[in-house]
Amino acid sequence: MTKGAIVTRAEDFPRWYQEVIAGAEMADNGPARGTMVIRPWGYGIWELMQAELDRRIKEAGAENAYFPLFIPEAFLQLEADHVEGFAPELAVVTHGGGKELEEPLVVRPTSETVINHFFSKWIQSHRDLPLLINQWANVVRWELRPRLFLRTSEFLWQEGHTAHATEEDARDYALRVLRDVYRSTMVEVLSLPVLLGHKTTRERFAGANRTWTCEGMMGDGKALQMGTSHELGQNFARPFDITFSNASGTLEHVWQTSWGVSTRLVGALVMGLGDDFGLRLPPLLAPVQVVVLVVKDEPEVRQAADALVAELRAAGRRVRLDDRTDTSFGRRSVDWELKGVPVRVELGPRDLGEGTVTVVTRHRRTKESVPLAAVTDAVASVLATAGGDLLAEATAAREARTADAGNLDEAVAAGSEGFARVRFGALGPDGEDRLAEHSLTVRCLQRPDGSLGGHGDDEADLVAVVGRSY
Amino acid sequence: MTKGAIVTRAEDFPRWYQEVIAGAEMADNGPARGTMVIRPWGYGIWELMQAELDRRIKEAGAENAYFPLFIPEAFLQLEADHVEGFAPELAVVTHGGGKELEEPLVVRPTSETVINHFFSKWIQSHRDLPLLINQWANVVRWELRPRLFLRTSEFLWQEGHTAHATEEDARDYALRVLRDVYRSTMVEVLSLPVLLGHKTTRERFAGANRTWTCEGMMGDGKALQMGTSHELGQNFARPFDITFSNASGTLEHVWQTSWGVSTRLVGALVMGLGDDFGLRLPPLLAPVQVVVLVVKDEPEVRQAADALVAELRAAGRRVRLDDRTDTSFGRRSVDWELKGVPVRVELGPRDLGEGTVTVVTRHRRTKESVPLAAVTDAVASVLATAGGDLLAEATAAREARTADAGNLDEAVAAGSEGFARVRFGALGPDGEDRLAEHSLTVRCLQRPDGSLGGHGDDEADLVAVVGRSY
Repeated sequence: MTKGAIVTRAEDFPRWYQEVIAGAEMADNGPARGTMVIRPWGYGIWELMQAELDRRIKEAGAENAYFPLFIPEAFLQLEADHVEGFAPELAVVTHGGGKELEEPLVVRPTSETVINHFFSKWIQSHRDLPLLINQWANVVRWELRPRLFLRTSEFLWQEGHTAHATEEDARDYALRVLRDVYRSTMVEVLSLPVLLGHKTTRERFAGANRTWTCEGMMGDGKALQMGTSHELGQNFARPFDITFSNASGTLEHVWQTSWGVSTRLVGALVMGLGDDFGLRLPPLLAPVQVVVLVVKDEPEVRQAADALVAELRAAGRRVRLDDRTDTSFGRRSVDWELKGVPVRVELGPRDLGEGTVTVVTRHRRTKESVPLAAVTDAVASVLATAGGDLLAEATAAREARTADAGNLDEAVAAGSEGFARVRFGALGPDGEDRLAEHSLTVRCLQRPDGSLGGHGDDEADLVAVVGRSY
Repeated sequence: MTKGAIVTRAEDFPRWYQEVIAGAEMADNGPARGTMVIRPWGYGIWELMQAELDRRIKEAGAENAYFPLFIPEAFLQLEADHVEGFAPELAVVTHGGGKELEEPLVVRPTSETVINHFFSKWIQSHRDLPLLINQWANVVRWELRPRLFLRTSEFLWQEGHTAHATEEDARDYALRVLRDVYRSTMVEVLSLPVLLGHKTTRERFAGANRTWTCEGMMGDGKALQMGTSHELGQNFARPFDITFSNASGTLEHVWQTSWGVSTRLVGALVMGLGDDFGLRLPPLLAPVQVVVLVVKDEPEVRQAADALVAELRAAGRRVRLDDRTDTSFGRRSVDWELKGVPVRVELGPRDLGEGTVTVVTRHRRTKESVPLAAVTDAVASVLATAGGDLLAEATAAREARTADAGNLDEAVAAGSEGFARVRFGALGPDGEDRLAEHSLTVRCLQRPDGSLGGHGDDEADLVAVVGRSY
């Protein structure tokens, strides 16, 4: 029934996911409903993602800042769609310092309101624009059907908030983040292909004029929304009164964007790249890139292992020595495989007598006998190619589960197995309602060639990517 | 009355602090009582501190993880001193997802309880020890007299939590963190001298057997507790039932530590190093290490500035070009001085005609004419020495305000101006109460030579460092 320690994906994908998360010691359920403990293995992956995202965010000109966790309830009510969208998910603090509060405080579900309150103070002149701010923070959205990393009542994320002098400048920036920060990280770092497009009116962010999205396909054919970038128009600028004096001294409202990705990306990595033996980590996101396994506790083996660890570390690799020989070698191998470490180097006394070790690649599960002197090169070669291999594999899997559809019934059939591509207009006026009856949604709209729809396009002529989603 | 834009420290130190924080655009008060917005300049300093702390925490063997913001109220009640210490400061969530919660949730004031809940699940055997965990997070402690960075209802911090097989191992680790993580960062990175010692029973952490502390002296002679490391004994291990089977298979309770530093360190940097012109940043913590100021907008000046920025960046410096020539040069100089940027390079058309620029150091306020070709070396020289200069200056200032005292009255007199060093036994049995009447406390206990008191020392013979505090 199971390969290694876990159920196969084909047998029970949701259970497989839970078993990988638990077996790889990535996360646990927290004591309060829907909350999550991110254990060191899961957090280590998130830290590496964060660093890659943060570097790109800074290259895009945004600066990090930090805004309060608690937001006065009245702030949320200033933008009507926004409060309507978030009200059912709010956690509310009613007592502080031993007393009932005069005004309840909302635990931030997102920070548009509190950040825009400050934008209205900080922005005076066109010289203050664009104002490009990013925040790394925890947010809370009450969750009745939690799933680790994918949907939790509290999650970690970054949220960008910007203000611009013109609508065009805001739109360009929303798209710059979508492509240069999000797509770049997802494809080049997570090794996951993503479709870019925009959400239908029904699916867009509460308070946005347009929501751009990166949609990935998971190992079971379902879609995962991996990151979004919103054009907010002047929807927040007006109620929060964010104005600037333009070059001729006239007051105008700013144009805004907001954008975010979260710890959900860790779940995407598991579901997008994992196999029946567990997680498969792209080398850039592996807290441990190489594990050096001492098969048997003998002085020469240990000495060779120590030397190899030092050599690999000197070459800049993240290395862990596993010399826990009181645990069986088989058990340890399965554990490292489950954790997705890209390369295992196994040192046994017999091989070592012949001057060789065994190099095992995680993503292809190949084993090779390598002379001790060539190990660092062999490891370098695997680490240089594994990310690209995983991306190619995930892309091929997605293509194999993507089909063109001519009408709603065909879209329902194809979308239930993967992605259906169908002309949006062909779904009919109540198309999204009818898709919903089959637990399907339009994940995004694109031009037929896969490029982004412009504001001049007729939406009916765009391609709707239809699928089930997390 | 004011030098530059702000009041002097001698005139009104608290107002000077506020004006530096506001003028350098480091932080603002949040809309909910006691909360804080950390603006990019303040957050940039915190990010650099975080990186230095994080590297040292990892070198000390701890791994990062993340635990939930919300803690069931019942968890806090498991350790009696702990709940008594924190109850008056708690923020409580009573509503979630539109409903009243069956059990209220506490917003974490610190995470001993929730982390130890998981330690009891994760720890089985002596092979699982030591377990060394660190978390970067926001915490909430209701604050009636907030002051930006120093005391805010929400603050950012790291909290370490560890479990060990023996009391001695736990104690050694608490001290390792105190010295190798905290003192090292404070002295080598923040350029602030600190006294190490332990707290009196009255001042120690709620739930600890011993609290080790790093105490700094601010520019007004007051003490600031900059970081603490606690020996928790088995105080949490017993109620949370954290046991391990030792080598002979018998169950024992673990021995624990916890330790933390917070965004308060940013306040320490301002108050410990600032002068009457604003902040003075040690180069390691400067988001901008060198600002290149274009005095007048002329093509040759701009060209030279661009080339210099590129050259300094290639040399690995964090550089900002200030070409906002529509703002007066004097105003811009004062602003960069207020923000504490270590080096300003001023490019004027006249100097440039002679092939020179003006290099201004922030910490000494010296100006020098330097040939264009020698600027990168001149900058390197300032950046290499400024941190040490600031540390020496702060150390000398502290020594000048530290006096020996023979009894309580002398300790009150000297402690009101700076630090009084007095034999703890000489304060008498109600000494701490009497100090409190003068708003004084024992900041820490040390051996007469300044080294740490051991568990074998008679506390009466230790030196009490007495002072006012933030």
